Amino acid sequence: MYTKKLGRQTMKFLNPPSLISTGTAVGPYEGEVSPFRDDFDQIFDDLLAGQESFEKAERHLMLTACYQALRKIQTPPENVEFLFAGDLMNQLISSGFTALELGIPYLGIYGACSSAAEGLLLAAMTVDGGFAKLVMAATSSHNSTAERQFRYPTEYGVQRKPYSQWTVTGAGAAVVANEGSGPKLTYATVGKVVDQGSTDPLHMGAAMAPAAASTIIQHLKDTGREPSDYDLILTGDLGQYGYELAVKWADESGGVDLSQVCQDCGVLIYDQAERVNSGGSGCGCSAVVTYSRIYQELQQGKLGRVLLVGTGALHSPTSVQQKENLPCIAHAVALESEAVL
Amino acid sequence: MYTKKLGRQTMKFLNPPSLISTGTAVGPYEGEVSPFRDDFDQIFDDLLAGQESFEKAERHLMLTACYQALRKIQTPPENVEFLFAGDLMNQLISSGFTALELGIPYLGIYGACSSAAEGLLLAAMTVDGGFAKLVMAATSSHNSTAERQFRYPTEYGVQRKPYSQWTVTGAGAAVVANEGSGPKLTYATVGKVVDQGSTDPLHMGAAMAPAAASTIIQHLKDTGREPSDYDLILTGDLGQYGYELAVKWADESGGVDLSQVCQDCGVLIYDQAERVNSGGSGCGCSAVVTYSRIYQELQQGKLGRVLLVGTGALHSPTSVQQKENLPCIAHAVALESEAVL
Repeated sequence: MYTKKLGRQTMKFLNPPSLISTGTAVGPYEGEVSPFRDDFDQIFDDLLAGQESFEKAERHLMLTACYQALRKIQTPPENVEFLFAGDLMNQLISSGFTALELGIPYLGIYGACSSAAEGLLLAAMTVDGGFAKLVMAATSSHNSTAERQFRYPTEYGVQRKPYSQWTVTGAGAAVVANEGSGPKLTYATVGKVVDQGSTDPLHMGAAMAPAAASTIIQHLKDTGREPSDYDLILTGDLGQYGYELAVKWADESGGVDLSQVCQDCGVLIYDQAERVNSGGSGCGCSAVVTYSRIYQELQQGKLGRVLLVGTGALHSPTSVQQKENLPCIAHAVALESEAVL
Repeated sequence: MYTKKLGRQTMKFLNPPSLISTGTAVGPYEGEVSPFRDDFDQIFDDLLAGQESFEKAERHLMLTACYQALRKIQTPPENVEFLFAGDLMNQLISSGFTALELGIPYLGIYGACSSAAEGLLLAAMTVDGGFAKLVMAATSSHNSTAERQFRYPTEYGVQRKPYSQWTVTGAGAAVVANEGSGPKLTYATVGKVVDQGSTDPLHMGAAMAPAAASTIIQHLKDTGREPSDYDLILTGDLGQYGYELAVKWADESGGVDLSQVCQDCGVLIYDQAERVNSGGSGCGCSAVVTYSRIYQELQQGKLGRVLLVGTGALHSPTSVQQKENLPCIAHAVALESEAVL
């Protein structure tokens, strides 16, 4: 029975669930500058996505991503057994209202920007554990909702720092099933919360980098794999500064060379567009990258093995005001193309 | 393999995990007026619990509950494989910082006041699914942190309505294992989000009552059980008004008579103390009731079968300001004394 466990943090899925469908929806800026713009399922041409508030727009993005994922497998929401969803909004209102609309039994999750990976690994556990045949995981973020909740209303036009990241307006959904065609979910490594003394909530990449490195090192140790066993180790949203720190940290703290195989969703999503500074962030960032181009390349066999490493900073504005450091976490999920299995 | 599923929402644990230990910690008011005061593991005699802010006090309560649960089984945190934790604070700071302190691989969850039940059912899935042998679930709330985040700072002395509930200052932790002595976790029913048109965030019991009734009705239908198959159906924190509505709703919408077997943690915890009006609420409410007296009576065989039905209102202050209804959810977990199995 416990052959499903490798060490303390890593699970091996003995009947690897399939990622049978994904859906993505993004905002206008992502539709304009992202190199993945042709891979997204839906691009809204205004930040309100036809809704009357940014918060309602964000949940409309999440709902759209879910419907896109279901459309591709011609499955109504009534067939989905559980929905794991999370977002950055206080009390996860994007997820809760999306679950209301879909009518799928719902379990709310929160791992900040690691929520996409957390949802995917919980969906995989649910299916591999025999508790369901069809489970969905979804997440979202919106630049205008996150900025005003965590930082300043965008109307203020606050000057951003070189290491600031740009919250992605986007949502991604994944459908995980016990059978069917698609990349397999083979391993998952649950992260520990890490605090390496970062205090600047505008410099999240630096705070999250040690968490990313720690989870990757643990995953490789538990599975006996080398970085080169993966075609891509894809960190969530460290941005350029955080990405460089994570590669350095993995080398210095674990002797693991990630330089050849690691890329970061926060770096990739905007392709160094000037406005975004260090790159993208937000729950939607790793979701829309992973569930668009990366998923397609796994399906096509262009990518064989990908390790998605979702990273999240678990502070709140209140904890920062109370002079707390930024606690961070990273969860890893291995996706393997059917072509290599 | 799929004998673990009864209908869409209910899971049957084929190797029912054991609830081998629990821990509770509460604040001064709970220590004073609660009929369970002799059953709590630790009572702090001031609301700050020796910390410098209420937020830090809340996480100190959660940490204390976790350590109490571990102390009773003489197990260090290093032996626990996963921690599922959630609380009411924005970005779950109570849970995140507790997970940092404990060093246990952490998965954050959010179901508002249903988080205790959500954590318990995910812990049970993880163990029954063969992904771990020892998992902890924890949750907390604090009157002074919740009131100022969701309503008004307590210093304002806002007059409370007859149907207002009093956020419990308390935390509960549960240790779920694949073996060992303790009540078994036999079934879990995951709730759907329900909206019956409630708009008043001070009248949460009314909003949550339909969700509680709906999940109970579904659980009974899926398992083929009658209300009388349980010695106690224990709703999370509906309070007196919500409790009466849930009993009525179950009768009118599902023909299920809960009047003989149903009690509510929000009603029980303060035993109709005047100040609390309709009763207790908050993530900690159902946790401290279930993990103190109810757990003890399950261990002793005084209670045979208990269905814990955690209830949560999934709104945020922002969603209420934007004139949204209160979406609500309830999750059910069946606990069965070893004496009756």
